[in-house]
Amino acid sequence: MSFSLLELFAPVVAVAGLLYSLVFWSQVKYAPDGTHAMQKVAAAISTGARAFVHRQYQTIAILSLVVGVGMILVYGITGATGSGHGTPFDSAQGASSGWTFGFEIGIAFLLGAFLSGLSGIVSMIVATKANLKTAAASKDGLNAALQMSLRGGTVSAIVITALSLLGISGLFLGYRFIGMEPVTIPGLIVGYGFGASFVALFAQLGGGIYTKAADVGADLVGKIEAGIPEDDPRNPAVIADLVGDNVGDCAGRGADLFESISAENIGAMILGAVLYPAFGIKGILFPLVFRALGLVASIIGVYSVKGKEGETPMTTMTRGFWVTAILTIGALYVTAQYMLSNSEGGLTDFSSENSAIWFFLCGLTGILTAVAFVYITDYYTGKQGRPVQAIAHASKTGHATNIIAGTAIGMESTFLTVVSVCAALFLSHWFGEMSGVADGGLYGTAVATMGMLAVVGYVLSMDMFGPITDNAGGIVEMSKAPEEMRKVTDELDAAGNTTKALTKGYAVGSAALAAFLLFSAYMEEANLTVVNLANVNVFIGGFLGAMIVFFFTSLAIRAVGKSAGVIVEEVRHQFRENKGIMDGTSEPDYAAAVDIATRSALHEMILPGVVAVASPILIGMVFRAEAVAGMLMVGTIVGVLMAAYLNNAGGAWDNAKKFIEQGAHDGKRSPAHQAAVTGDTVGDPFKDTAGPSLHVLIKLFSTLTLALAALFM
Amino acid sequence: MSFSLLELFAPVVAVAGLLYSLVFWSQVKYAPDGTHAMQKVAAAISTGARAFVHRQYQTIAILSLVVGVGMILVYGITGATGSGHGTPFDSAQGASSGWTFGFEIGIAFLLGAFLSGLSGIVSMIVATKANLKTAAASKDGLNAALQMSLRGGTVSAIVITALSLLGISGLFLGYRFIGMEPVTIPGLIVGYGFGASFVALFAQLGGGIYTKAADVGADLVGKIEAGIPEDDPRNPAVIADLVGDNVGDCAGRGADLFESISAENIGAMILGAVLYPAFGIKGILFPLVFRALGLVASIIGVYSVKGKEGETPMTTMTRGFWVTAILTIGALYVTAQYMLSNSEGGLTDFSSENSAIWFFLCGLTGILTAVAFVYITDYYTGKQGRPVQAIAHASKTGHATNIIAGTAIGMESTFLTVVSVCAALFLSHWFGEMSGVADGGLYGTAVATMGMLAVVGYVLSMDMFGPITDNAGGIVEMSKAPEEMRKVTDELDAAGNTTKALTKGYAVGSAALAAFLLFSAYMEEANLTVVNLANVNVFIGGFLGAMIVFFFTSLAIRAVGKSAGVIVEEVRHQFRENKGIMDGTSEPDYAAAVDIATRSALHEMILPGVVAVASPILIGMVFRAEAVAGMLMVGTIVGVLMAAYLNNAGGAWDNAKKFIEQGAHDGKRSPAHQAAVTGDTVGDPFKDTAGPSLHVLIKLFSTLTLALAALFM
Repeated sequence: MSFSLLELFAPVVAVAGLLYSLVFWSQVKYAPDGTHAMQKVAAAISTGARAFVHRQYQTIAILSLVVGVGMILVYGITGATGSGHGTPFDSAQGASSGWTFGFEIGIAFLLGAFLSGLSGIVSMIVATKANLKTAAASKDGLNAALQMSLRGGTVSAIVITALSLLGISGLFLGYRFIGMEPVTIPGLIVGYGFGASFVALFAQLGGGIYTKAADVGADLVGKIEAGIPEDDPRNPAVIADLVGDNVGDCAGRGADLFESISAENIGAMILGAVLYPAFGIKGILFPLVFRALGLVASIIGVYSVKGKEGETPMTTMTRGFWVTAILTIGALYVTAQYMLSNSEGGLTDFSSENSAIWFFLCGLTGILTAVAFVYITDYYTGKQGRPVQAIAHASKTGHATNIIAGTAIGMESTFLTVVSVCAALFLSHWFGEMSGVADGGLYGTAVATMGMLAVVGYVLSMDMFGPITDNAGGIVEMSKAPEEMRKVTDELDAAGNTTKALTKGYAVGSAALAAFLLFSAYMEEANLTVVNLANVNVFIGGFLGAMIVFFFTSLAIRAVGKSAGVIVEEVRHQFRENKGIMDGTSEPDYAAAVDIATRSALHEMILPGVVAVASPILIGMVFRAEAVAGMLMVGTIVGVLMAAYLNNAGGAWDNAKKFIEQGAHDGKRSPAHQAAVTGDTVGDPFKDTAGPSLHVLIKLFSTLTLALAALFM
Repeated sequence: MSFSLLELFAPVVAVAGLLYSLVFWSQVKYAPDGTHAMQKVAAAISTGARAFVHRQYQTIAILSLVVGVGMILVYGITGATGSGHGTPFDSAQGASSGWTFGFEIGIAFLLGAFLSGLSGIVSMIVATKANLKTAAASKDGLNAALQMSLRGGTVSAIVITALSLLGISGLFLGYRFIGMEPVTIPGLIVGYGFGASFVALFAQLGGGIYTKAADVGADLVGKIEAGIPEDDPRNPAVIADLVGDNVGDCAGRGADLFESISAENIGAMILGAVLYPAFGIKGILFPLVFRALGLVASIIGVYSVKGKEGETPMTTMTRGFWVTAILTIGALYVTAQYMLSNSEGGLTDFSSENSAIWFFLCGLTGILTAVAFVYITDYYTGKQGRPVQAIAHASKTGHATNIIAGTAIGMESTFLTVVSVCAALFLSHWFGEMSGVADGGLYGTAVATMGMLAVVGYVLSMDMFGPITDNAGGIVEMSKAPEEMRKVTDELDAAGNTTKALTKGYAVGSAALAAFLLFSAYMEEANLTVVNLANVNVFIGGFLGAMIVFFFTSLAIRAVGKSAGVIVEEVRHQFRENKGIMDGTSEPDYAAAVDIATRSALHEMILPGVVAVASPILIGMVFRAEAVAGMLMVGTIVGVLMAAYLNNAGGAWDNAKKFIEQGAHDGKRSPAHQAAVTGDTVGDPFKDTAGPSLHVLIKLFSTLTLALAALFM
C-alpha cells in the first residue's frame, strides 16, 4: 500500500503546524513572569481552572466511553452499518460487514472525542499561562501586550485546527492502509464528528454554566449587595470568575470550533465521495487539502499583526484578518484549479463545461459570508451602532424598557443573519449547478462552507485572545499593579469583548452553512431522497426538533441561575463568618468558591446534555429516518435563529452598559446605569452559556444522526 | 335549485344564535347603570374606544379594499385560478373560468374582512356597555356581577361564532345557487379565510400595541415617577389604559378567534371535498354542522354557570366549561354517526370498516387537547404552580434574576405545548387512517381540529369576560365606590386574568392543529404532493419563514416601546403644564392621552403588518409553491413555539408580581416586588401584543398562501 502525495499533504501540514505552534508556545512560555503578586493571582486561577477541567473531563471521558463502546456493541449486535449508502461501492463493501463497520465508526468516535478533549485542555493550559505573560508584558506597552496575548491565542488556534485535520486525515490513511476504497471511508469517519460534538457539548455547557454562574454570582453579592467593584480581591468569588473565562471561553469554544471544522470536513468528504465519478479521489481530499492551506494562511495572518502608533488593537487585528482572507482566496483559486477541474479551460473560462471556476466562486461566496458575519455582529453589538444606542437610551426609563429594547434588538438581528446564510446557500448551490457536474449544487454548498471555515485559524486566534486579555486585566487589577498597566489591559479587554462577539457570529453562520451540508450527507447515509414535511411524522419530527431548541435553552439558562444561587450563598456565608474580609485584614477562601462552583456547574450540565443527546435518538427510534431529517433541519433552523438572538442581545446589552459607563446618560451609578447592569446580567447566560451551547447542539444533531443513521432506517 | 336540510342547518342555527344573542344583550342593556360618577368614567372609556376603533377600521377598510380588489384584478389579468386542484371536478370547472373564480375569491375575501371587522366592533361595543353594568352589579354581590360580565362576554362570543358560520355557509349556499358543484366551492371560500386573517392581523396588532403602550406608559410615569397607584384618576393616561382593554383584548381577540374558526372550517371543507368519493356532500358539510352544534352547546354551558356560596369565580366557570365539553362530545357522537359513516355498524363497531367510530375518536382527541391546554396554561401561569413560585423566588435577588427565571420558564413551557399538539396530530392521523377511508388520516387531523375548536363559543365567553371585569374594576376604583364593591371586582378581575391566559393557550394550541390542516389544504390547492425540505429552495423558504417570526416579534415588541415613549412624554407634559393635577384640584386631559395613543398605535401597526403580508407573497413569487409550503410549515412551527413562550412567560411574570403583592417575599414595595414589577412590565408586550399577534400571523400565512396558491405555481 502506498499513498499519493495528495493524501499525505494534509497530515504533513498538520504535523508541521503542531511543531510550529511550539515556536509560538516558547515565545509565550519564556516571556517574563511579572511581579510576585501577579504570579500569586495567576497561580490561583491556574489551579482553579485545572481542577475544574480535570473533574469535567473525567465525567466527559466516562460518558464518551459509554457511548463509544455502546455504539460498537449496538452495531455489532444489530448488524446495522452506518456506511456510505448511495456510494458506488456500497453493495460491495457494506452489506457483509456490520460488525467491522460498527467497530470502525466507534473507534472514530473515541478518537474524535479524545482529540476534542485534548484541544480543550491545551487551550485552557495555554490561556492560564498567557494571561500572566500578557499582564507582565503590559508594562512594555500596548503592542507588546497585544502580541503576547495574540501569540497565546494562536498556539491554541493552531493546535485545534491541526489536531482536527490530523485526526481525520490520519483515519483516512489508516482505513486506506487496511485496504478500503476511498469512497467508503468518509461514511466511517462520521463517528469522529459525533465524538467531537459529544465532547464539545459537555465542554461548552459545563464551561458556559461555570463561567456565567461565577460571573453573575460574584456580581450579585459583590457589586449589588456589598457595593465593591468588579475584580475586587475582597470578593470570595472573584477567582472563580477569572477561572470561568478560561474554562468557558477557552476550553469550551476550543472544543466548539474543533467540532465545527471536523464536522464540516467530514460532510464535505461524504459529498466528495458522491462526486467520485467526476473527480475521483481529488473530490474527497479537496476539503483536507484546502483546510491545510487555510491553516498556513492563518499563521501568516497572525505574523502580519503588528500594531502601529495610535492604532486601536481592533484595527491591527482586522488587518490580519484581511491578510488571511486574501491569502485564502489565492489558495482556493489554485486548489480548485488543480483538484476540481473537469476541463482544460482553467479559471478564466466561464463556460458551463469548466467546473473549477464555478467551485472557486462557491468558495469565494463562503469567504465573503465570513466577512459579512463579522460586519453584522459588529453592527449589532458595536457601541456606535443604532442597536446599542437604542438600548442605552431605553435604559433611561428603567430596567423593563432596557430588557424590552434588548429583546427586540436581538430578535431583529436574525434578519441579516438569515438573509446572509440564505444568499450564500442559494448562490453556492447555483454556482455548483452551473459547474455541469452531477450533484454539483450540493457540492457547491460544501465548498462554500469550506470557504467560510477556511479562515477559522485566524478567527480562533482572535477569539482565544479575548479570555487571555480579560484574565490579564483581572491579574493586573488584583495585584494592584500601576495605573498605566491597567490602561493597557483595559484597552485590550475592550478589543477582546469585540472579538469574542465576532467569533460567536462567525460560529453561528458557519454552523448554519455546515448544517445544510451535513443534512445532505445524512440523506446520503440514510438513503433518503426526500424529506417531506407534509408527512405527519416528519412534521412531528420538525416540531419536536424546534421545541428541543427552546427547551434546551431554558435548561441552560436555568442552570446558570441555579449555580449562581449556590455561589451567592457561599459568598454570603464567607462574609458572615469572616468579618475581616470586607475591611481587608483577612483573605477570603477563594478555593472554596471555586470548588462549589465546579461541583454545581458539573451537576447542572448533565440534564441539558442528556436531553440533547437522547432526543434525536428517541425520535429516530420512534418515527424513523425521514422524521429525524425533519427534526434535524427544523431544529437547525430554529437553533441558528435562537443562537443569533441570544448572542446579539447579550452582546448589545453588554456594550450598552459599557457605553453608559463611559459617561452617556449620566454615566456610572445613574438610574440608567443600574438598568443597563440588569440587561448585562440577563445577557450573560444568553451570550455565554445558552448561545454557544446551541452552536454545538446544532452540529451534535447532525453528527449524531449521521453516525447513527443506520439505526433509524 | 333547492337545498337539502343539511345545507340549511348551519345557517339556520347561526341566525337563531344571532337572534338569541339579543336576549343576552337586552339583559345587559337594561340592567341598572350605577352612580353618576361611574357613568362618567364609563362614558370616557366608551368614547375613547369608539374613537380608536373608528379610526383603526377606517385604515383597515382601505387596506382590505386595496387587497381585495387587487386580487380580483390580478386573477382576472393573469387568468390564474385558485380553485380546488386535485378535486375530481377540477378540470371540468376550473380551467376555463379564470376571471370568474378570481372574482369569487375576491368577493369572499371582502365578505370575510367585513364580517371579521363587524365581529371586532360588536365585541368592543358590548364590552364598553357591560363594563359599567358589571360595576353597578357588584353592589349586589359576586354572583350578580359574575353573571352580568359573563352574559356580556357571551353576547360577543355568540356573535363572533355565528357570524363566521353564517358567512361561510352563506357563501356555500350562494355558490350552490349559481349552480356550482359542492366539491368546487371550498376552494373558492379560501378568500373568506384570508380576508378574516387580514383584518384580524391589523386589529390584533393595532389593539395590542395600543393597550400595552397605554399600560406601560401609564405605569412608567404614574407608578414609578409620580408614585401614584394603578387606576388613579390623577394619571392622565388612566382612561387610555382602560380603553386599551376594550380595543386590544376584546376587539383584537374577537377578530383573532373569528379567523381561527373560519380558517379551520374552510380547511376542513377542502379536505372534505377530497373525501367526496366516500361521504359525498356530507364530508364537506360536516365542519359546518358540527360547529353549529358546538355553538348550541356553548350557549347551554353559559346558562349552567351559577355561582354557589363560597365558590371562586374560576370554579364556577370551569363547571360551565365541562358542561360544554360533555355536550360537545355527545354532539360529535351523533354527527359522526350520521355524516361520516361508511357502514351500518354504528359507533360500537370498532372495525377498520366502520369510519364513524374512528372519526369520533379523532374529534374526541381534539376536545381532550383543548382540556389539556387549559391545564398546561394553568400550570405555567397559575399562582400556586412551581413556575410562578420560582419567578417570585428569583425576584429576591433582583431584576436580572427575575427576568432570567421568567425567560427560562417561558421557554420550558413549549415542551408540554408541543408534546400535546404532536400527540393530538399523531393520534388523530392514526385514527383517521384506521377508518379505512382513502386520505382518512388527513381528514382525521381535520376532525380533531374541529373537536378542539368546538368549544370555542364557551372559551370566547370566558375570554371576553376578562376585559369587562378589568374595566369594571377600573370604573369602581375611579368613581371612588365603596370598598365592598371593589372587593367583588378585584375577585372577578383575578379570575379574568386567568381566563385571558387560558384563552391564549387555547388559541395557540388550536392554531397549531389548524395549521397542519391548512397546509394539507394548501398542498391540495397548489397541486403539491411533497414538500422536500432537502431541496435548497424549500430549505431557504423554511429558514426565511422562521426568521420572519423572530423579526415580526421584534417589530411588535418595539412598537409598544415606541408608543409607550410617546405616552410618557404626553403625561410628563401634562404634569408639568398643569400643577393642579397632582393635588387633585384640576382634572387631567384624558382625551389628549387617548388621542396620542391612538395615533401612535395605528402608525406603529403598519410596518409589522406589511412585513407579515408581503413576505409570503415575495417568497412565493421568487421561490415558487413548494418553497412557500416550507415557509408556511417551518414558520408555523416557530410561530407556535414563540407564541407559547411569550404568552406563558408574560402570564407567569404577571402572576409572580401578584403573588408577591399578596404578601410573599416581604410583599408590596419590597425589593422583590420592584423586581417583579420589572418582569410584569417586560411581560406586557410579550403576552398582549406580540404573542396574540403571532397567533394571527400563523393563520394569515396559511390563509394567504391558500388564497394565492395559484400565483405561486
